[in-house]
Amino acid sequence: MIDVKEYISTNKDRFVSELIDWLKIPSISSDPGSKANMLAAAEFLKEKFAEQGVDKVEIYPTDGHPVLYAEKMIDPSLPTVLVYGHYDVQPPDPLELWESPPFEPIIKMTDAHPQGAIYARGACDDKGQVYMHVKALEIMAKTNHFPCNLKFMIEGEEEIGSEHLGKFCEEHKELLKADSILISDTDIIANNIPSITTGLRGLTYLQVEVIGANRDLHSGVYGGAVANPINVLCKMIASLFDANNHILIPGLYDEVVELSEDERNAMSKAPFDLEEYKRDLNIGDVYGEKSYSTLERSSIRPSLDVNGIWGGYTGEGSKTVLPSKAFAKISLRLVPNQSSEKVLQLFTDHFESIAPSGVTVKVYPHHGGEPVVTPTDSLEYKAASLAMIDTFGKEPVPQRGGGSIPIVALFESVLGLKSVLMGFGLNSDAIHSPNEHYGIFNFLIGIETILKYYDHYAVLKSGQID
Amino acid sequence: MIDVKEYISTNKDRFVSELIDWLKIPSISSDPGSKANMLAAAEFLKEKFAEQGVDKVEIYPTDGHPVLYAEKMIDPSLPTVLVYGHYDVQPPDPLELWESPPFEPIIKMTDAHPQGAIYARGACDDKGQVYMHVKALEIMAKTNHFPCNLKFMIEGEEEIGSEHLGKFCEEHKELLKADSILISDTDIIANNIPSITTGLRGLTYLQVEVIGANRDLHSGVYGGAVANPINVLCKMIASLFDANNHILIPGLYDEVVELSEDERNAMSKAPFDLEEYKRDLNIGDVYGEKSYSTLERSSIRPSLDVNGIWGGYTGEGSKTVLPSKAFAKISLRLVPNQSSEKVLQLFTDHFESIAPSGVTVKVYPHHGGEPVVTPTDSLEYKAASLAMIDTFGKEPVPQRGGGSIPIVALFESVLGLKSVLMGFGLNSDAIHSPNEHYGIFNFLIGIETILKYYDHYAVLKSGQID
Repeated sequence: MIDVKEYISTNKDRFVSELIDWLKIPSISSDPGSKANMLAAAEFLKEKFAEQGVDKVEIYPTDGHPVLYAEKMIDPSLPTVLVYGHYDVQPPDPLELWESPPFEPIIKMTDAHPQGAIYARGACDDKGQVYMHVKALEIMAKTNHFPCNLKFMIEGEEEIGSEHLGKFCEEHKELLKADSILISDTDIIANNIPSITTGLRGLTYLQVEVIGANRDLHSGVYGGAVANPINVLCKMIASLFDANNHILIPGLYDEVVELSEDERNAMSKAPFDLEEYKRDLNIGDVYGEKSYSTLERSSIRPSLDVNGIWGGYTGEGSKTVLPSKAFAKISLRLVPNQSSEKVLQLFTDHFESIAPSGVTVKVYPHHGGEPVVTPTDSLEYKAASLAMIDTFGKEPVPQRGGGSIPIVALFESVLGLKSVLMGFGLNSDAIHSPNEHYGIFNFLIGIETILKYYDHYAVLKSGQID
Repeated sequence: MIDVKEYISTNKDRFVSELIDWLKIPSISSDPGSKANMLAAAEFLKEKFAEQGVDKVEIYPTDGHPVLYAEKMIDPSLPTVLVYGHYDVQPPDPLELWESPPFEPIIKMTDAHPQGAIYARGACDDKGQVYMHVKALEIMAKTNHFPCNLKFMIEGEEEIGSEHLGKFCEEHKELLKADSILISDTDIIANNIPSITTGLRGLTYLQVEVIGANRDLHSGVYGGAVANPINVLCKMIASLFDANNHILIPGLYDEVVELSEDERNAMSKAPFDLEEYKRDLNIGDVYGEKSYSTLERSSIRPSLDVNGIWGGYTGEGSKTVLPSKAFAKISLRLVPNQSSEKVLQLFTDHFESIAPSGVTVKVYPHHGGEPVVTPTDSLEYKAASLAMIDTFGKEPVPQRGGGSIPIVALFESVLGLKSVLMGFGLNSDAIHSPNEHYGIFNFLIGIETILKYYDHYAVLKSGQID
């Protein structure tokens, strides 16, 4: 009988090395030129699943990037867990801020990761976390110990809103039939403070364009007399907030679920060190909606961020131009019970309505996703909690997350399945940023915890059925 | 005796062809990589001056781009005119909006220019206008008719604030000694409404940087809780204006000379068609400071424009990033008696003071220039007016311009010389924009008017001396 800890310890260099090979494939879903890379990343994964002797592994084409599906069915009487993850990654921009190239992974020791961390785009979000599941499967195969039936659905469009996964789920309901969904695409509070994510914000992402005159103008000849689309765009964006950083889009807060005093009190007890938070980001102060804590601002409250802005002359030196157009990419994070479609409409109506008469404004929707709250009284949550107690030696803290995994809400509505969000990243892992990384400690403890999860889940589930 | 009109008519194709050769040299002063091109543009001009048999022509190095100087001294008893112009051009960005490449000049017929216009960066601003002076010199040489002594100072840093020309003037006061300065770097109201520019706005150009966290952040994890430098930059820029588009920088208007009712009434009589202005720019309405007309807003009132803005993700698709930094290039146009140095200080102090505590703000000065008003009761103005009556058949309208020629104020303080601003461009020539062009009609009538100017100036000047 193979000892799991020992097997992981013996094989960890190979595990990391395989992951590094996968990370070298720049599977940037938003890049129109990355089709071949996307397929290569899916093929790589297909081969790795095939090596574990799964019953089935297949790459399903969609109207966008393909979905990798694999399954290992042991016994219809055992519970079936559907593992969801994604092989696509965020664009690596701005490239110049990476200390090592984003698709040439290297291992570095850091204060947060004394055992080393893998630096690469996608290391933590989400290839590294997906690959924990592949290696957990390897161990189950080696030990021939399968407490659950397993299905895997690893998609390629999470970072661009999972546009085609809804249709895929609709069309493959039978294939995807399971008892629950397990997702490792979130973080823990710290390596000594395990946590389970119990909520995610939704997302509405869009692009705006402000158009002034029919050509760029000399800012001396026209400045002060003709609307400057950049000036106007800044004014329009600024007008979306009041002095308390409350968002001024009519109707935006109508559906927002306000937490009770008790719920807010419970939340405030989560381990959180504001000074450490500020030190980590090197900021003088936090900044957000008045009367809410930092944890609340980033989890239970909607937010509006300009993710990119451009217009006019941005090169070296100066150009006295009054540009014809200005652009911004804007996203809103949503909380229960907001709807991404409705928020898109509210934003669009409002933004168009505040355009001064000297300009034309266009709003282009990008993608969206719905907010979710996952239960803490479910068997799945309990199994995850017990698994983390086994590996971390501590009960995990339930924590609402600020990010979005658009598909979680869809799983509920289309497949009727609840998800458990058991991820192993750290806030400081710089996902979506230059120098993204994933701790080797986190990668290895993740594999171990996943195995424990199946054990506990099978036991709890059999108790329930009996 | 050569007839001037006939000579111009016979040689116009060669004149245009020579100018086109010069326009092919991309003399972009703000481009750090253009040193060789700058020198090539100066060398081209040197050769052209040498061909006209000048007494002296020399390229003077400076700490920046060189100054081309030439002179033709006939008789110390004749008045001496110093012609100023510049051989540097604005960057051609955004390149994709040019209908033909900016440094591959072509001739096109347009409604405004039925005789054709030369399309190229610098065609009007200012190579085309400088070249009128070279060809006027050729005609004077051919006819051996020199009513004035002539000096030419053609610099290479006008578009970046003439940083080194002040020192050059200081060091070459004797060389530059003259009775007055003639500059062709402005426009006329229309080809049938000649005008002379009697004032120019000054300029303060700077760049700002707003710095938030020490790295780009995931907008889901941090959005709403940490200052987003783009959101903050937009708010800071928006806060620089009140609802009437008055600029809210304390002290900014302290030195602004308010025109009297009489002066404003006189100004309002200048030919100006607001509907045509809006149609030309394809805008629904003008936009500017309340209680001032469009002509006033763009000439006698200060303005503040963002000339460029950038930050975050600006590529294809979407990236849910909360960027670490955001940037803007901002310029203020100044009116008498504002000082560019003082306005820079007022802006910097104010902008730094309004930064919220979650960010750091930096302000970097670029360049500046002082506002000027030129007299309308001078001999030079009168000579220019008579010259235009000769060639256009109409008395020119005095007109305050909105742009800046930073060096005009310096000529007054260092050389003690007044300038006359007799330019021949049109507002619609798209200077500083894609598809800059210069009418062949304007180019040719400019040559003829310059010749008439010297005649009238010599006569008026001799009358004054006698």
